Amino acid sequence: MTMQPLHPEPIYDIAHFGHVELLTPKPAESLWFFTHVLSLHKVARQGQSVYLRAYGDYAQTTLKLTEAPHAGLGHAAFRASSPAALQRRVQVLEGTGLGRGWVDGDVGHGPAYQFVSPDGHAFEIYYEATHHSATQENRPYLKNQPERYPHSGARARQLDHLNLLGADVLPNRQFFQQHLGFRLSEYIVLDNGLETGAWLRVTNKSYDLVFVADALGAHGRLHHIAFRVDNREDVLRAADLYTENGIAIENGPSKHPTGQTFFLYALEPGGNRIEICAGGFQIFAPDWEPVRWSQAERARGQAWGAPTVASFHSYGTPVVKVQDADHK
Amino acid sequence: MTMQPLHPEPIYDIAHFGHVELLTPKPAESLWFFTHVLSLHKVARQGQSVYLRAYGDYAQTTLKLTEAPHAGLGHAAFRASSPAALQRRVQVLEGTGLGRGWVDGDVGHGPAYQFVSPDGHAFEIYYEATHHSATQENRPYLKNQPERYPHSGARARQLDHLNLLGADVLPNRQFFQQHLGFRLSEYIVLDNGLETGAWLRVTNKSYDLVFVADALGAHGRLHHIAFRVDNREDVLRAADLYTENGIAIENGPSKHPTGQTFFLYALEPGGNRIEICAGGFQIFAPDWEPVRWSQAERARGQAWGAPTVASFHSYGTPVVKVQDADHK
Amino acid sequence: MTMQPLHPEPIYDIAHFGHVELLTPKPAESLWFFTHVLSLHKVARQGQSVYLRAYGDYAQTTLKLTEAPHAGLGHAAFRASSPAALQRRVQVLEGTGLGRGWVDGDVGHGPAYQFVSPDGHAFEIYYEATHHSATQENRPYLKNQPERYPHSGARARQLDHLNLLGADVLPNRQFFQQHLGFRLSEYIVLDNGLETGAWLRVTNKSYDLVFVADALGAHGRLHHIAFRVDNREDVLRAADLYTENGIAIENGPSKHPTGQTFFLYALEPGGNRIEICAGGFQIFAPDWEPVRWSQAERARGQAWGAPTVASFHSYGTPVVKVQDADHK
Amino acid sequence: MTMQPLHPEPIYDIAHFGHVELLTPKPAESLWFFTHVLSLHKVARQGQSVYLRAYGDYAQTTLKLTEAPHAGLGHAAFRASSPAALQRRVQVLEGTGLGRGWVDGDVGHGPAYQFVSPDGHAFEIYYEATHHSATQENRPYLKNQPERYPHSGARARQLDHLNLLGADVLPNRQFFQQHLGFRLSEYIVLDNGLETGAWLRVTNKSYDLVFVADALGAHGRLHHIAFRVDNREDVLRAADLYTENGIAIENGPSKHPTGQTFFLYALEPGGNRIEICAGGFQIFAPDWEPVRWSQAERARGQAWGAPTVASFHSYGTPVVKVQDADHK
Repeated sequence: MTMQPLHPEPIYDIAHFGHVELLTPKPAESLWFFTHVLSLHKVARQGQSVYLRAYGDYAQTTLKLTEAPHAGLGHAAFRASSPAALQRRVQVLEGTGLGRGWVDGDVGHGPAYQFVSPDGHAFEIYYEATHHSATQENRPYLKNQPERYPHSGARARQLDHLNLLGADVLPNRQFFQQHLGFRLSEYIVLDNGLETGAWLRVTNKSYDLVFVADALGAHGRLHHIAFRVDNREDVLRAADLYTENGIAIENGPSKHPTGQTFFLYALEPGGNRIEICAGGFQIFAPDWEPVRWSQAERARGQAWGAPTVASFHSYGTPVVKVQDADHK
Repeated sequence: MTMQPLHPEPIYDIAHFGHVELLTPKPAESLWFFTHVLSLHKVARQGQSVYLRAYGDYAQTTLKLTEAPHAGLGHAAFRASSPAALQRRVQVLEGTGLGRGWVDGDVGHGPAYQFVSPDGHAFEIYYEATHHSATQENRPYLKNQPERYPHSGARARQLDHLNLLGADVLPNRQFFQQHLGFRLSEYIVLDNGLETGAWLRVTNKSYDLVFVADALGAHGRLHHIAFRVDNREDVLRAADLYTENGIAIENGPSKHPTGQTFFLYALEPGGNRIEICAGGFQIFAPDWEPVRWSQAERARGQAWGAPTVASFHSYGTPVVKVQDADHK
Repeated sequence: MTMQPLHPEPIYDIAHFGHVELLTPKPAESLWFFTHVLSLHKVARQGQSVYLRAYGDYAQTTLKLTEAPHAGLGHAAFRASSPAALQRRVQVLEGTGLGRGWVDGDVGHGPAYQFVSPDGHAFEIYYEATHHSATQENRPYLKNQPERYPHSGARARQLDHLNLLGADVLPNRQFFQQHLGFRLSEYIVLDNGLETGAWLRVTNKSYDLVFVADALGAHGRLHHIAFRVDNREDVLRAADLYTENGIAIENGPSKHPTGQTFFLYALEPGGNRIEICAGGFQIFAPDWEPVRWSQAERARGQAWGAPTVASFHSYGTPVVKVQDADHK
Repeated sequence: MTMQPLHPEPIYDIAHFGHVELLTPKPAESLWFFTHVLSLHKVARQGQSVYLRAYGDYAQTTLKLTEAPHAGLGHAAFRASSPAALQRRVQVLEGTGLGRGWVDGDVGHGPAYQFVSPDGHAFEIYYEATHHSATQENRPYLKNQPERYPHSGARARQLDHLNLLGADVLPNRQFFQQHLGFRLSEYIVLDNGLETGAWLRVTNKSYDLVFVADALGAHGRLHHIAFRVDNREDVLRAADLYTENGIAIENGPSKHPTGQTFFLYALEPGGNRIEICAGGFQIFAPDWEPVRWSQAERARGQAWGAPTVASFHSYGTPVVKVQDADHK
């Protein structure tokens, strides 16, 4: 039994990954994918955007799909734990030089404070949020479920996490740790000392936000967003539904070593990479020692040895041509 | 979009349900059940107690099994989020009249502050805790797992939650809410206004501690402790292993409406009720509105309509004879 | 190693359970159940009947739903292994006194020979059958699947088996063994020598046709028909969809001792009992010794000890009032 | 509704794949793999061979493991449907020039008639077989199960199928169709007309015996044998146990297009490829039209698009060096 060293008080000001805006050059096809294949519901349409939610999301909306010339991340938003927590974080962010100021609430949430990651991804934090109210039609049998279990499709349960490409991983994950209280769960350090991946959490899930190195050296790109289903069999079923619906599977179903997550990746019609995930471990220890993976350990491939497909290391949105990337 | 009312700052001083001590009049048989059937590992033996852990528990030990004249709860312990959080909670507990003072650390943890619930159950909180170190023999393939996936048995992954019987539910759940920062997830209120069950959380799981009304009006009794497995199929397999090992199943496998947990209940040989659970929903909303279940809703039975077995409403440990209970 | 006794050459003239006609007083509601909830497809409508199929059925149609004053079995049909096999069995049936003669083909099959079980249930055997041809719209990604994996509902894969109530089990199962080559897999014999259940097979599944004792002593009643899904998790999901769709679950999900089948029972809106099943063992031994279950063994309940609901022993279609039954 | 053409009477003389003998240069390590990892039981040891069985096999033994200088198939055996069926098939085989005559029974079965496939693989057919009798220790809770559900390991349920490499697929599959009554379920024909794979069945499983083209043009080699588990989740668990036990996974878990089987491949320590499989479809139609897969369809990879690992197309036992193969 060893005495644990004292450490600074943890910060619990961020409650969870709240919502995400995806850009798509094919809005109708993207909407079909999220509603027909993944079972999300359309909540509202406003301007060039459609607002969606999964049946297990408590919030009124978790995905904003916006028509744009190219695919990519519009913005990602985390919900604060309380109004005071929001104020505290905004105050800190304003001191970083990366704060961008307040905006009025969007569909489903109140005023939000905008900032950018060191790599340039657009972020927001907010507290006020509208909870979903099931209509008579969507009223679930079990009232602790936001709405009825979907009758069709892959039945994605809830928005789970966000994975971003960054030209340099370390300053991004440190920014979220130092200024927003994210906790580091796992990270990859190559033999040359370069950190190429970092898994961060604000909940008991082992990650809510991930940064991985952009092999093309580009900035501000999205690797993927993930929706959670209840178990590994649901992921296998999603794969069956993907093939039946003409959605090309990029990777999986298989098991990640980091997070131990069972995964399935495909590009939605607009080009953004979407993960369906299940399982994985949870972290309850307040003094969790981040797990450091070496280059040799990563070379073992996925959890069961399957090699990771090449596109997984280079493809992101917006799509960057290699010659463009070389100039960065 | 409605403005959320301001509420007092939430308290995050308790990290998770840390460990539990069960009393058993049949220590050898109970040990066989937890190690052979549930796949727990024996960590240490000290005096009349054996210390155990599940393969996914990060802590050195999560279950203390102590020989005693009758079954029941020895004590239950929650881990604080930080040394300062521990101090804050102890200060508050000392003001409640239910604090009992500090004890030296037990196997696997440092100094602990003892207190009792209003109903009389023995509790502890502590911060210092020894993390498990896998031996060469038990080293997992994936280093983010505390030890190797068990080769045999029902492969319980980790200690999950604690369910206590109380003569009066309300003061118990309020005690944990007010003094320790537990959050109420769901509760049952009968037509006559009596609260007969309350599900409390300190993590994103929808419950870590539950109080249900003791039909016999007794005090300080245990309803069950639960270990988590990865999915519903694992619960079904546990049922197969129970019958092969002569363990009589009391209830399940089936699905609870509260928590949406897939469950399996049996008595370990010493008489304590043990649950194997999987699935269920998680709570991320910082402003979660507790779900109130009415008498009529509870009368619908389990989530798929199966009636709850009678023993589930009366049996607890220590076993109380009805005539004894009548005098309380 | 013991020498097996010589036995008469087995008969392989019946290939499989081909289709079934259910009577329903609520044809629209029944159709909704089979198509919306169980994911069957409507193939044709003719007179007072609708013809349906599950996505994994190779035949054009496996369920005929016919409007009638009360629920019950219209008729059940088994497909012969070859034209010659059909002729052989018809010749045998004509000698039993229970043959009823040929009828023209129905939707999906050619000429059929009608007969009745000793208990009075209407049966047919036939050989000519139309295979399903997927339309462009329903073309599966995998061409070895008759049609696309259903996008919605409980996704029943195929018609699996038929369970009939009979006033006297023994003569019924012997009739199918002696005249049609069915093989006995398991049976129940009470302490008083009465046989109260018999599971018969013509395939490698451990049963295709079951007779159980009618507690009301009635004749010609249906206990249930069953559709198969791929695994136990699919059965659990069907239960979720049942509650969301207001279908009251009578029994399960749980595991039968006979067949080891994982089951879920409910009444379709017309009143006929429908099972969703998965798993179970298969029989490959040509000299399988039928498993005899005693009264004491049956008293142990389902495979995990759950008591069988009372209605399971008495309810069948047509519904018989107890006073009516007493007169029989 | 179309009239089916008359076809010759099907032959049902072969009941199922009965047992297989594997050669291994590392008998102790191979034995460890089958007993410790796959949960088979050792039944007997005789000479250089050990006899094993899976818990769901009705036969006393299904795997014979024989020490030899190199890995490979010793022999494979199919059980006849009756003594007369055995005699009929032997008579036919004797006319093919590939019969090799009778041998005395081995552990678990009576007299067997030996023959070789056109490619040179050693085969046997037999009828007399000893059924397993559970000991007191291994008595199952459910008496329709040959023995207790295994307490440890990957819990392989039963021997499922055999996959052989052949220099030329067509004559091999035709031999088994014409002389032994095997039925063709699926096959692959390249654009140049070469048949490179054929899936044959004698049961309702869609395959019991498979021939695939040996890319090295060698003769008499084994591609793999397969053991069945109950569902896809069991296959995923087997993958977890493989990594924990240092067994390198060659391919999977994933889903085959042919058979729709969920698979996991690895080499046992002796070098033979072993599959753990679950799911897949069954064939009940007596007039099943074999599914023909084109070169383009096979180029789509596995059922969800994953490319097949290169070793899967060339590795077999005995291991053949490429320069050796070139001379054939």
